[in-house]
Amino acid sequence: MDVDELTRRLAELAIAFGANVQPGQIVFVQAEPDHAPLVRALADEAYRRGAKFVDAFYFDPQVKRARIALADEETLDFVPPWYSDRILALGDERAARVWVTGASRPGLFDDLDPGRAGRDLMPRLKETGKIVNDRTTNWTIVPYPTEGWAQQVHPGGNGDALQRLTDELAHVLRLDEDDPVAAWQERFRDTRSAAARLTERRFDAVRFDGPGTELTVGLLPSSRWAAATFETVDGLEHKPNLPSEEVFTTPDPTRADGHVTATKPLVFSDGSVVRGLTVRFEGGRAVEIDADEGAANLQARVAKDDGGRALGEVALVDREGRIGPLGTVFYDTLLDENAASHIALGSGFGFSVEDDADAERVNQSAIHIDFMIGGEDVDVTGITREADEVPVLRGGAWQV
Amino acid sequence: MDVDELTRRLAELAIAFGANVQPGQIVFVQAEPDHAPLVRALADEAYRRGAKFVDAFYFDPQVKRARIALADEETLDFVPPWYSDRILALGDERAARVWVTGASRPGLFDDLDPGRAGRDLMPRLKETGKIVNDRTTNWTIVPYPTEGWAQQVHPGGNGDALQRLTDELAHVLRLDEDDPVAAWQERFRDTRSAAARLTERRFDAVRFDGPGTELTVGLLPSSRWAAATFETVDGLEHKPNLPSEEVFTTPDPTRADGHVTATKPLVFSDGSVVRGLTVRFEGGRAVEIDADEGAANLQARVAKDDGGRALGEVALVDREGRIGPLGTVFYDTLLDENAASHIALGSGFGFSVEDDADAERVNQSAIHIDFMIGGEDVDVTGITREADEVPVLRGGAWQV
Repeated sequence: MDVDELTRRLAELAIAFGANVQPGQIVFVQAEPDHAPLVRALADEAYRRGAKFVDAFYFDPQVKRARIALADEETLDFVPPWYSDRILALGDERAARVWVTGASRPGLFDDLDPGRAGRDLMPRLKETGKIVNDRTTNWTIVPYPTEGWAQQVHPGGNGDALQRLTDELAHVLRLDEDDPVAAWQERFRDTRSAAARLTERRFDAVRFDGPGTELTVGLLPSSRWAAATFETVDGLEHKPNLPSEEVFTTPDPTRADGHVTATKPLVFSDGSVVRGLTVRFEGGRAVEIDADEGAANLQARVAKDDGGRALGEVALVDREGRIGPLGTVFYDTLLDENAASHIALGSGFGFSVEDDADAERVNQSAIHIDFMIGGEDVDVTGITREADEVPVLRGGAWQV
Repeated sequence: MDVDELTRRLAELAIAFGANVQPGQIVFVQAEPDHAPLVRALADEAYRRGAKFVDAFYFDPQVKRARIALADEETLDFVPPWYSDRILALGDERAARVWVTGASRPGLFDDLDPGRAGRDLMPRLKETGKIVNDRTTNWTIVPYPTEGWAQQVHPGGNGDALQRLTDELAHVLRLDEDDPVAAWQERFRDTRSAAARLTERRFDAVRFDGPGTELTVGLLPSSRWAAATFETVDGLEHKPNLPSEEVFTTPDPTRADGHVTATKPLVFSDGSVVRGLTVRFEGGRAVEIDADEGAANLQARVAKDDGGRALGEVALVDREGRIGPLGTVFYDTLLDENAASHIALGSGFGFSVEDDADAERVNQSAIHIDFMIGGEDVDVTGITREADEVPVLRGGAWQV
């Protein structure tokens, strides 16, 4: 698919289906300068649907690089208060939000001190976690191809890297279907049905067993599995991730035990990468973090606050999605996390538990870092309150 | 000069000399996405000088175009409160600011309804006028060449438009000198000296006489002429415009009478243009606005508020500057206003009068729109309180 065609189709999918923008809404778009063609198409589409104002926020990773490289170390945690205030105001205004991923300059931070790099989490802001949990905004995250990103995903090619990535994104976003929305609705019927069956089982824990992995993650008594669709406090449906192939919940942050080997690279929102990651958990906390590359970066991030070492999410991905079968490593969490089951260190989802008492137990943190631990050779097993073991995923196929 | 060299030299001039960034300061940079190379160089330079944080704000005129074209007309005046709050916070924080001009898409709004276009003044915000008057930020405005702008300035060329514009900017910014700061200091000694001589005269008014122009602009009793250098409330010097060739003050908003013919096109900060402008003033107010092109756009803007039809600035430019002699129309107010004497409709400068009583009389408005009325064939004459006439500029040369 030609990139202009992808841009047009993706803008329509993101505004009309993903964020589900309503007439009169403010639409906040966060992107990198290299995503400008999509940002402009999103603005067109949003205004066509009656948006009141499109607030395009371009975050420039090359400006951030200058900071990490040159600023006084003491200042690296500083976030201008107006960055935080804007996010909270978007919640108060019941705004829509679209976040565009696809790092335009992969490896931009690789030669910098990872301890310094890990102190500046922007463009991530902890207030975003708050408005997500308050469910006051209807939002979506979508990927957009850039030349830099394409070179990372398909290096050493014959000049067609951007076209290959564009075609892959069109495929995994179902934009190659005559009716992408209908295709997504069909897929989401399946993942939501799996989520409902899992919630019904009320497992006490789930266990992952595979090469280099034996990890048990405890669930909260009222942990509810969900897929694809969120609903705001005002009852507005939206699709937080496009693509989305996952079924997820928020775990008990005090019960994760064992060790786990990541099955894909972990990529931060600023494009820096952790490869060959292994983590050991004890009593819910990541007590050992090792990696072939980038361990210090992750270590610095989890040290940001007390909740950084505990889990906020556990998510299962079956083999019916479109990302896993491609075999492509996208170096982008939005895509890679939907290729394989994963867990996230950091903030959990208050709306993923049904009891108020459990909601207070959900992990709190300024970070939320997903990494992939699943695959067709990783078994997922549910453990009941009676300690019975129930197969959940075998070879990537649902057993429940 | 090669554009990378210009970028590096201009960033150094803007941060070190123009905005005069101090260690520990927040530096707000406002630019278009096409100015990204300069924004990144500014960030490098600012962090190298100890900046606490560089807040790069990319305003995308193509997103604004979608709004003007498609949004509900009722919403076009809306400004998200966090845009205004940020500007006020920059004042509270005693931040530095750099604003980059050079419209990347000239003519972008030409096919849109000028009445609609005139209702959205962004990226201009009225709070910027407030912090300018409060003198709480040290700031500068600098131009940066883009391909789109170069094509407007040098159309139909043989592919060298960007190089020609780059060379011209290097020249007028004195970046082609071994020591650009020394060159500016020399020029500013001259313009500041002219400003001091004018202030000493305490003219009651100045009159412009030339082809199609006979306009008398009244001054306030304590109007003070200034040039080149501003000083913050904390005593920090900065150069608000680079280049700057002007000597200016704020006039009596109730006394402007006569008619005036603009000597260059008027260009708004969003890149739209008014050509062949004539304005008739009565009792300080612009009572007739005509133009060969773009009159409705200006009419919509001056109708924004009560002060939109009165003058906030009168500025004199001699023939010793570097912009006028080039004969180039830059379609950019920062440059064109420094080629010729000019006046501005809208907000005045409280710091340009010496008495508090006069400060309350300075014009208030959300707009500030400069347009050029001077040239070597326009005589400028000072009128004393005793109604004596004193030549001020003849053939572009100072007579005082």
